[in-house]
Amino acid sequence: MQNLRINEQRLWEALMTMGEIGATAKGGCNRLAASDLDKQARDLFVAWCKACDCTVEIDKIGNIFARRAGQNNHLPAVGTGSHLDTQPTGGKFDGVFGVLAGVEVLRTLHENQIQTPTAMEFSVWTNEEGSRFQPAMQGSGTYVGRFDLATELNKTDTNGIRLGDELKRIGYLGDMELGSRHMGAFFEAHIEQGPILEDEQKAIGIVRLGQGIRWYNIEVIGRPSHSGTTPMHLRQDAMLAAASIVKEINNLTQDYENALGTVGYMDVWPNSRNTIPGKVSFSADLRNPDAKVLETMHQALEAICHKVAKEQDVQVICDHIWYFEPVEFNASDDVKAATEQLGYSHMDIYAGAGHDACYMADLVPTGMIFTPCLNGISHNEAEYSSPQECAAGANVLLHTMLAASERIAQQHGTEHLSATTEKTKADQVSAGTLNEALN
Amino acid sequence: MQNLRINEQRLWEALMTMGEIGATAKGGCNRLAASDLDKQARDLFVAWCKACDCTVEIDKIGNIFARRAGQNNHLPAVGTGSHLDTQPTGGKFDGVFGVLAGVEVLRTLHENQIQTPTAMEFSVWTNEEGSRFQPAMQGSGTYVGRFDLATELNKTDTNGIRLGDELKRIGYLGDMELGSRHMGAFFEAHIEQGPILEDEQKAIGIVRLGQGIRWYNIEVIGRPSHSGTTPMHLRQDAMLAAASIVKEINNLTQDYENALGTVGYMDVWPNSRNTIPGKVSFSADLRNPDAKVLETMHQALEAICHKVAKEQDVQVICDHIWYFEPVEFNASDDVKAATEQLGYSHMDIYAGAGHDACYMADLVPTGMIFTPCLNGISHNEAEYSSPQECAAGANVLLHTMLAASERIAQQHGTEHLSATTEKTKADQVSAGTLNEALN
Repeated sequence: MQNLRINEQRLWEALMTMGEIGATAKGGCNRLAASDLDKQARDLFVAWCKACDCTVEIDKIGNIFARRAGQNNHLPAVGTGSHLDTQPTGGKFDGVFGVLAGVEVLRTLHENQIQTPTAMEFSVWTNEEGSRFQPAMQGSGTYVGRFDLATELNKTDTNGIRLGDELKRIGYLGDMELGSRHMGAFFEAHIEQGPILEDEQKAIGIVRLGQGIRWYNIEVIGRPSHSGTTPMHLRQDAMLAAASIVKEINNLTQDYENALGTVGYMDVWPNSRNTIPGKVSFSADLRNPDAKVLETMHQALEAICHKVAKEQDVQVICDHIWYFEPVEFNASDDVKAATEQLGYSHMDIYAGAGHDACYMADLVPTGMIFTPCLNGISHNEAEYSSPQECAAGANVLLHTMLAASERIAQQHGTEHLSATTEKTKADQVSAGTLNEALN
Repeated sequence: MQNLRINEQRLWEALMTMGEIGATAKGGCNRLAASDLDKQARDLFVAWCKACDCTVEIDKIGNIFARRAGQNNHLPAVGTGSHLDTQPTGGKFDGVFGVLAGVEVLRTLHENQIQTPTAMEFSVWTNEEGSRFQPAMQGSGTYVGRFDLATELNKTDTNGIRLGDELKRIGYLGDMELGSRHMGAFFEAHIEQGPILEDEQKAIGIVRLGQGIRWYNIEVIGRPSHSGTTPMHLRQDAMLAAASIVKEINNLTQDYENALGTVGYMDVWPNSRNTIPGKVSFSADLRNPDAKVLETMHQALEAICHKVAKEQDVQVICDHIWYFEPVEFNASDDVKAATEQLGYSHMDIYAGAGHDACYMADLVPTGMIFTPCLNGISHNEAEYSSPQECAAGANVLLHTMLAASERIAQQHGTEHLSATTEKTKADQVSAGTLNEALN
């Protein structure tokens, strides 16, 4: 069993085949949630899973669960999964790699006729990207109970089309209850979407945490006036105050370990070359793996806004709109053990972005496996991971799931067989089937 | 003559009457250049001037010149004028005050039957605002030869309509040659459009200079990446670099007397909350009354861009798109003498914005008279100057023009009469006219 490996070529072909659905001219994917293209991708996943004798169920928010039976199907299963929807100018790997690494694990188990101690579950979560419907991680968040089902199904895209209607139209509005899968562990493989593994030359990131996130809408209100007639000392320049806050946000990240601070969005009014801006609205995004540090950063940001408002005689409104608490991945030791067993270089890392696994950690011990991506680029048609990098991640996923299945069976004190090749028995079945087919 | 004053009430009524043409709900004006509303405003000006026995001519770019004859009409005339077009959400005073202060001077001379040593010219310049057609100060700039006539007449608005066609349609495409008026001095009264006079509690600004202006388009190119997955030390953050330059531009103004620096426009790409900006484009506007200082500021800005590019590992392209050389107003002593004679509080000031007088200074000794405006607000429907403030400006314009007319006559060594009341003669004419009317 320790020598079992996934098929690198087959995984790569699956990624490239899936990438044809919604392919863009620049080599990326545009496959928005609950669209016709999402339906095609889901259908392909379901067909691939059924070809490996899985039973498939759909829940009330459109999440797909494909189950491969194990030795003791009363035990909690080991799950994996990610998403098939993409950004409008997304890549072929974000989310898709995690789903297809699961499919490759399934195929490897299936072709080797391995009976695992517990069942294995392969899932696809609805609308992880949040591009067409908000929020992101909508399927997993609703599944674990963070969001209200009726509210989410009523969410509309920019054309006013309801998510619920679209899921029904594409055939993926199921009747399975939310949160009803009986799982003992959940793992998600994903490209890192950042440059750290590449920078550190590591094949695998053992994801210990999903970091905490705080989002802000900040508005600076000054006084619009003429750039040629207003002396510097009589100005209330909303742009200058905003620039000061941008700089201070960057400075504050230097004071705390692993702190991130970003201003990604800015809107200037009246945005005219010879008018001193009267209003500048912008976003702030603070992140830290440590909830206490993130709280301190939050207070520091509020102090910065207060200070700049006072110094520059402008009004600064700092609206704290979202807090995502850091998530600990309790099953990450399973990932580490499998990685070491396989001999891949690795490092501990934390997830900078949100993932379906972050919500699944509410319900079940969870782990994530990161693989490098070229130049850290993601949410971009140029997103790329090599066949070797993808294979390493899928091999780690395979052995992590196998080990977790063993562990769960042991923990439940059940007499069980280790995962075994049932080749002899299976050969007999296959021979029988073949005979029937020939008859 | 020294006791002669304009009629404050009549000037105010003229401003309010003109303000009805294109009036906005918030008390401002929307009267774009060469529009139907501009035609109405021009027609009213022409009617008012003709009622005071002026002869009216239109030049090839639509500028209007109304001439009131003097004692010696071979001498260069004393001119005044400004513009009647407004910003789309402009006020009732910017430009209009200068034109109507001229009309009020004309009416005062006319009703008092004053014969001035030289002729007096009252003008309206085409498209000073540059809102509908670019550039600003198009009429005066073309008149003095800074712009090419055919090029300017071919300029189109956002609907593709040619300025030349619009001027013809509204009846203001004349055949008078550009630059052909014989003037010995030109004065423009204008609201300050800034807060200095109000702040210093002065009634009149003696405008000594039109300050120099340098405009830039600056583009910072970094690398767009995920705000949650990109460590601070691996970022190439175009927003942070742009903010640094905004701050440095403000800092550099502290190093030079009378220096102004403004970033009024900014465009962020991709402008997404959780993406580190990959490109930020913004404007810079540097001003100084001293050409040498402005050149030093220019070099300092280039050094700032170079330094920030190096420090933050981004590309910074600093494109210097426009230079307006400082303009000296050689006839400002006439304005000062008249202001002191009238006993108004005053201060020397310089024009922060562009004005038609800045171009007229190419051809003839020129002066500008600034009056306060409430809170320094202009290019805004809330723009306001009180009747008293307007009256003070118009009285200064009256006495400046009278003194300049005397000076020109003296300089030309011509025997001339001082400006005199021809009341006796005029009374006789009026009586005769009345008799004719009664017959």
